[in-house]
Amino acid sequence: MIVLNGGSSSGKSGIVRCLQAVLPDPWLAFGTDTLVAAIPSSMLAPGAGLELAPGGAVIAGSQFRAAEAAWIKGIAAMARAGARIILDEVFLGGAEGQQRWRAALAGLDVLWAGVRCDGEIAADRELARGDRVIGMAMSQAEVVHRGVAYDIEVNTAHAESMECARSIAAQVR
Amino acid sequence: MIVLNGGSSSGKSGIVRCLQAVLPDPWLAFGTDTLVAAIPSSMLAPGAGLELAPGGAVIAGSQFRAAEAAWIKGIAAMARAGARIILDEVFLGGAEGQQRWRAALAGLDVLWAGVRCDGEIAADRELARGDRVIGMAMSQAEVVHRGVAYDIEVNTAHAESMECARSIAAQVR
Amino acid sequence: MIVLNGGSSSGKSGIVRCLQAVLPDPWLAFGTDTLVAAIPSSMLAPGAGLELAPGGAVIAGSQFRAAEAAWIKGIAAMARAGARIILDEVFLGGAEGQQRWRAALAGLDVLWAGVRCDGEIAADRELARGDRVIGMAMSQAEVVHRGVAYDIEVNTAHAESMECARSIAAQVR
Amino acid sequence: MIVLNGGSSSGKSGIVRCLQAVLPDPWLAFGTDTLVAAIPSSMLAPGAGLELAPGGAVIAGSQFRAAEAAWIKGIAAMARAGARIILDEVFLGGAEGQQRWRAALAGLDVLWAGVRCDGEIAADRELARGDRVIGMAMSQAEVVHRGVAYDIEVNTAHAESMECARSIAAQVR
Repeated sequence: MIVLNGGSSSGKSGIVRCLQAVLPDPWLAFGTDTLVAAIPSSMLAPGAGLELAPGGAVIAGSQFRAAEAAWIKGIAAMARAGARIILDEVFLGGAEGQQRWRAALAGLDVLWAGVRCDGEIAADRELARGDRVIGMAMSQAEVVHRGVAYDIEVNTAHAESMECARSIAAQVR
Repeated sequence: MIVLNGGSSSGKSGIVRCLQAVLPDPWLAFGTDTLVAAIPSSMLAPGAGLELAPGGAVIAGSQFRAAEAAWIKGIAAMARAGARIILDEVFLGGAEGQQRWRAALAGLDVLWAGVRCDGEIAADRELARGDRVIGMAMSQAEVVHRGVAYDIEVNTAHAESMECARSIAAQVR
Repeated sequence: MIVLNGGSSSGKSGIVRCLQAVLPDPWLAFGTDTLVAAIPSSMLAPGAGLELAPGGAVIAGSQFRAAEAAWIKGIAAMARAGARIILDEVFLGGAEGQQRWRAALAGLDVLWAGVRCDGEIAADRELARGDRVIGMAMSQAEVVHRGVAYDIEVNTAHAESMECARSIAAQVR
Repeated sequence: MIVLNGGSSSGKSGIVRCLQAVLPDPWLAFGTDTLVAAIPSSMLAPGAGLELAPGGAVIAGSQFRAAEAAWIKGIAAMARAGARIILDEVFLGGAEGQQRWRAALAGLDVLWAGVRCDGEIAADRELARGDRVIGMAMSQAEVVHRGVAYDIEVNTAHAESMECARSIAAQVR
């Protein structure tokens, strides 16, 4: 299993697609976006669900956390059933987010990869993409990496997605 | 757990969103589309992966079946971990597809719902949507229901998505 | 030229794609959505641009109206240059919106088609689509038709997109 | 008017959105993608329409050229009606494509900007995006610039979208 962690607009999704292309075996790609697409739109709201605060901060409520807990167990079960999985994650709480996944993935072979991008560059890319809430990139650039331990780190401000993917793929046994 | 089965362009996704809106608890929505989005694009090809034959038939190869087997176990694990899940499925092999899920979901409370739509109407809707491969709707309209047992069946040729959702929701305990 | 006018989620886009499929000549499809996609995101805001008020009402400011005036002249020029055009419009101001287009299209052969849908059905479809701001369908269902004169009217609450398209196509010389 | 010309996946769209953000006045963005979205799907086929040849080459037939001729006149009319327009173009035929636009835009103030990107980098980005036909980027990287005269050229292999946009914006009077 490969877990990528990085802020919004740091370039994780591009790296995931490049990883799927360069790795010799078929790998499935899931992530925060998969879970967010699965929740009812009523949960994309302040309160118990997933709240998008002014300025781009994302706040996860208790209902979202409950859904996420089941989601994490499900992904772990897929990996235990033999699927190779690339996870595209945003650890909103930094180390705490990694801890949640680490506990569920106990016993599995996991490569932890940090995807960094300077906040100002990520913010410009967010604007260039045109499909993201402005502010998320800057708000998440640093905080998602706080206290997180990685096997490898890449920086998309200095390397193309494919180059980052090749560095990560080289660590996969 | 609610499992919806129906052909392409039969209107399942609309029913899923209406179900999420009318059911009092938060339900997560996953389905065939989630899995297809997760596989590498190299698997969307003739051979071992998922092949789209001329005319709209979809053929699942061994690599796709292996990924699907892990996916099914993962969804079952999410349900066992307490998540309420609506599954938006296309049983390409009819009864055989249901059997795969039934085995994995043993012991869980499952509502099986068939979403029917006349092949010609589904084909016209496929054209009206403009984002689907032409031919899939007609090709799947009948075959996905072959030998499948349902708790409830709805027909989107005669009822709006919301009306179908309300009928299904009325069966949820 | 064919001008379709109807509220959000009344089913215009599906009819447009069916019209393109059933009409013997190639027709180009443009509309409100094309213009909205072209404006800078800074214009999707209260004030001079295009404002989405709570409840789903859409308010067009002076900057948006200026852009629209140029847009209308451009579409008219395309039609005068020989292009067959289907326009997918939302006359927020009813008759006033038609008047703006009628003036620009003077001398061209135009078929005016009204696309109606009961507000409650449109609101349910808006929810089923899952990609629209909730409230727009109900807010626009009646008001966009106020004082507008049509050559033909269709009602998507009682007929499929393809059936509506065939009725409209039958009026095209 | 600003005309950007560059191959698929060279990064034009990102530059367009950044230009819209940094330019003080409201600019409308149109381009090849707008026209392609407007044509009937029957025209996305070998023959008279727009053909996507194996390997990623795009071949424009007579029907597509006729639609494009009307489109060009329409955009010119919008500009003459006072709209500030950023055009996101792919001159498949190089100088010939520029000539078509230059004739229509006679008398207007036009800034011609070339958006370059090394073919191999564009091809990797095409793969990273995951929503484009593989091969278009490499196929178009050089050919679209053949014989085209520019007021300014930017290279997205060496500069972020925002940086390129600022260089171009500095040339706008």
